[in-house]
Order: sequence, then structure tokens, then C-alpha cells
Amino acid sequence: MKNKLLEKIKTVAITGVGLIGGSIGLAIKAVEGVRCKVTGIGRNKNKLIKAKKLGAIDDYTTDFKEGVKEADLVIIATPVGTIASIIEKILPHLKPGAIITDVGSVKAPIVSAIESFLSHSPFPTHHLPVFIGGHPLAGSEKSGIDYARADLFRGAICFLTPTKKTPLKVTETIQKFWELLGAKVLILSPQIHDCLLARSSHLPHLLAAGLVNLIAQNKNKYSSQVLGPSFRDLTRIASSEPQIWTDISFSNRKEIITALGQFRNILLEIENSLKKKDRKKLKKFFQKAKNYRQKVLNES
Amino acid sequence: MKNKLLEKIKTVAITGVGLIGGSIGLAIKAVEGVRCKVTGIGRNKNKLIKAKKLGAIDDYTTDFKEGVKEADLVIIATPVGTIASIIEKILPHLKPGAIITDVGSVKAPIVSAIESFLSHSPFPTHHLPVFIGGHPLAGSEKSGIDYARADLFRGAICFLTPTKKTPLKVTETIQKFWELLGAKVLILSPQIHDCLLARSSHLPHLLAAGLVNLIAQNKNKYSSQVLGPSFRDLTRIASSEPQIWTDISFSNRKEIITALGQFRNILLEIENSLKKKDRKKLKKFFQKAKNYRQKVLNES
Repeated sequence: MKNKLLEKIKTVAITGVGLIGGSIGLAIKAVEGVRCKVTGIGRNKNKLIKAKKLGAIDDYTTDFKEGVKEADLVIIATPVGTIASIIEKILPHLKPGAIITDVGSVKAPIVSAIESFLSHSPFPTHHLPVFIGGHPLAGSEKSGIDYARADLFRGAICFLTPTKKTPLKVTETIQKFWELLGAKVLILSPQIHDCLLARSSHLPHLLAAGLVNLIAQNKNKYSSQVLGPSFRDLTRIASSEPQIWTDISFSNRKEIITALGQFRNILLEIENSLKKKDRKKLKKFFQKAKNYRQKVLNES
Repeated sequence: MKNKLLEKIKTVAITGVGLIGGSIGLAIKAVEGVRCKVTGIGRNKNKLIKAKKLGAIDDYTTDFKEGVKEADLVIIATPVGTIASIIEKILPHLKPGAIITDVGSVKAPIVSAIESFLSHSPFPTHHLPVFIGGHPLAGSEKSGIDYARADLFRGAICFLTPTKKTPLKVTETIQKFWELLGAKVLILSPQIHDCLLARSSHLPHLLAAGLVNLIAQNKNKYSSQVLGPSFRDLTRIASSEPQIWTDISFSNRKEIITALGQFRNILLEIENSLKKKDRKKLKKFFQKAKNYRQKVLNES
């Protein structure tokens, strides 16, 4: 690639060519002057063929070993529940010094599993592949290569979660990589990432699904006909893939359990304000939310 | 107006020319062949002047008595907390047989207050003005005449909540009126309206505000920087007007208290599935929500 830090990356392997993996491929191809080769790896040949047709990858293979052996950068873009085991599987076949990163929505359990594989691997230290956790905050309730876009990461946040085991140069390289794709990189520890995302992303998915299920359990025949634009927006993410969100919820279960408890307390307080007819408190609750939202959206 | 049922409506008075009231004026003016006069009534002269400039009203007054005396149809488009008292105030000044309707998000307390005023009014029965509750499910977190649009109601649901005291002809007239403005009318009892809206609209506003407040109470400096598109969409309605939503919440407090309790139970169940590591149950929860949302959005 063009940038000094990236010029050594001549081959990128992307495992999982869905919405995120496919968009990474398209985004790499859209960077001016980039000539690196992108290999797609996956189990489903039809998806790989489609990704190639769309120009997201140059070639593909269903053989993980074959796919990664020449790669300078391996990006794991499969569901959270599969990331650690895929990395364990490909590790012996990587080039010395290859960089591995991922796009999983949960970081601490993945990072710690992978660092443990690496510390037990038979590579000599100076030839070890290096892992750095990543998580682009992009995508939507839609999934699959059909929705992939070269500009999916433009203006999006991408978290990187290096640890003390991550060489600074690797962090800088992957930061540069995401910046080339248009993202704004934010560096956090895996634990803080998971704590914050439990509240800003994982809990919202549970709330959206919970609200839909509350409506669904209402037996009134008009129940499904009274749903306006606020319901539609608020529950958009309830159309996300159930398996993916079950995996994410389980990977970050401790933080989510805490967040759920905190949120239930907030609701209980509101319920009490209504029971006690405490108008002032309820208005303050709405006002605080309006002010904070305005502040943070202006910031971003 | 053109339609047979509507041809007697020569003057419409709109009390409150904000997003909804202003859009009603613009929508009336946009109906082909309509020549009825629209009077705007309000306390704030500047807003009325703006509404006239935008073409939402033909003239205006800050004198409620003056504004309603010629009107065949009076539409109260002020916040929920003010509707009943405005109607009480204008009642003695209405033309015999005038129709009054409103656009409030809560119906049972408004309808019962107004029917009580009417039953105690000094009008001879055959000259009584008639009230029918209405609620167009349109608008957004934005408020004010600046956001008014002639097509705001196109494709939107508009609830009408007649009671046994409402003459059928009045229901048919107001149904026709909203259909001319592009809305799809749904007729419900005031009580069922409030029960359903508590879950599909009022609770979502509390959830959105609650989620913003959960993030706001987190002291981590990155807390406000990790907010992605799902947070933005889910909390859009947390930017609604605090006073309006305090009023709505109080007007429908019993139903909302019940809905909050039911929703807290749903969250508690999820929390328990996570604690017990019951993956199957969590996946079922997400799957049920995805399926139901898909079903109801295809229906609508």
C-alpha cells in the first residue's frame, strides 16, 4: 500500500466476506494507488464467488491454510463466536511476522484467548504473528455481501484494543490501515471497550428486541397496526441476526448483566416518579436525556 | 371542501400552529379544489405570522373566542396537557353544530373530560358542538412550524376514538377529512388507544431517554465517543420536547406504569438467561423479535 507503514502489506486475507469483510475488500480496492492482493476465505463458495464478482476480493479459497499462507495481514470478519477458534486453526500456517486482526463486537475474551494461543505457539519469538483486536462501529441490521459498500467505514469509529503485548508499530500500522479506509480510530483497552459497548451497543439490541417482544405478546388485534415511525426506528436493530447477537451477548455477558441491572433501575425510578406523580422528576429525566444527546451528537 | 361529507366545512380553525397544526393547514391547502378558510389561533403572534407566511393558514388571531366563532371544524393541536382546558374555554363561543377534534397522543382522559363539559353545557341538544378525539401518528422529535410539511400525514395512521356519544356522521366526516390529508384512519376506543400507544409509543420514549441517561451517568471519558448508528437511531426520540413527553406520560400514567413493569420483566428474564448461560432462550428471544418485526412491517 501507499503509506510507509503499509507498504509491506502486499497480500490481505479476509476470512468471512459478509457485510463487514466484503466492505473491507471493497474499501481497500477503492483506496487510490493500492495494489495489494485481497484473498477471500470462507466456507460458502457461492458467497466467495459473489464477493469476487462485486470486486471485493481478487481470489478466494475455502481452504483456510491455503488462504492465509501468503498473507501479510489477516482480517477475521466472521461472527464473534468463531473468531478465536479460527485464529487458533490458522496460526500454524501464517507467514512469520504476519499481522492478524479482527472486527468482533466484543474484545476482552477474544484478545485474551488469542494471546494465550500465541504464548503457547511453537514460533520463535521474532517470527511470531501478532494479533491486535479491532472493531469497526459500522454495519447495520442487514448482513451479507449484498449490503457491502466501499464507503461503509467512512466517518465510522474503529476501535483498536492493543495490550502491553502488542508492538507499537503493529498498532500504528493497523490504525493507518483503518484510517485509509475512512475510519476514525479510537484506542481502548479490551476491557474498557467491552464495558462501554455493553451500554452503547449490546444493551440497545436487547432493548429493541425486548420492545418488539412486548408488542408481540399483546393479544389485541390492533396491536401490530399502531406502530409508528418511533417504533420503527427504535426497533430497527431488532431485525439483526439472532445468532450473531446471541454470540455477542454471551461473549460480553458479565458487562451486559451489569448494564441490564442498571437500566432496570432507571426504569424503576421512572415508574416510581409516575406512581408518586412526581412531574418535576420526570421532566428532569427527559430534559437530561435531550441535553446529553444533543451534546454528544454535536461532539461526534 | 370537495367531498360531500366535507362540503359544509367552510372554515377550519386550528389552535396551535406547530409541527402538527401547521402541517394540517399546509395539507388542507394542498388538497385539490379545496377553498375552505383556515384560521390559526395561538398565544404567540410570531409563530402565527410565520404560519401565515408559510401558507399554512389564511389568517390568525390570539383571541380564542374570535378565532373559533365562525369555524365549522375546530382542531386543537396544542400539547396534551392543554387540550381539555382549551376546549372548555372555547365551548361557549362555538357555532351550533361545530365539530371539534384534537391531535393529542393520549385519548381517554381528554375524551372523558370533554364529554363531561359537553353534557353540562347550556347548548340545546340539537345545537351542541360535537367532539371526536383524534391522533395522527406523525411528526418526530422535531417540533415547531419550521418542520411543518403538507405531506406529513401521507401514509400515516390517524386514530379516531369516537364513543357511543359520537354521531356516526361526525366520525365519517372526520375520517374523510384525514383521508383527504393522506392518512389511513384507524378507529379505536379511547381506552384501547391508550393501552396500545403506551407500549408502541410512550414506553419507547422512556426507553430512549433512559438509555441516553445510562450512558450519561458513565464517568468514563470515552463514554460519549463510542456511540454508533444503532445508538443514534434508537435514541432519536430522546431529543423530543421534555414538557410534551412529561405531559403525555402523566396523561397515560396507569397504562405506562403497567407497560414499564411488563418491560422490566422481559429484561429480567433476559438477565436470567445470561446468568444461567441459557443460549437457546436468548436466541429464541432475538429470533422472535426479528420474525415479529418483519411480519408487522410487511403488514403495514
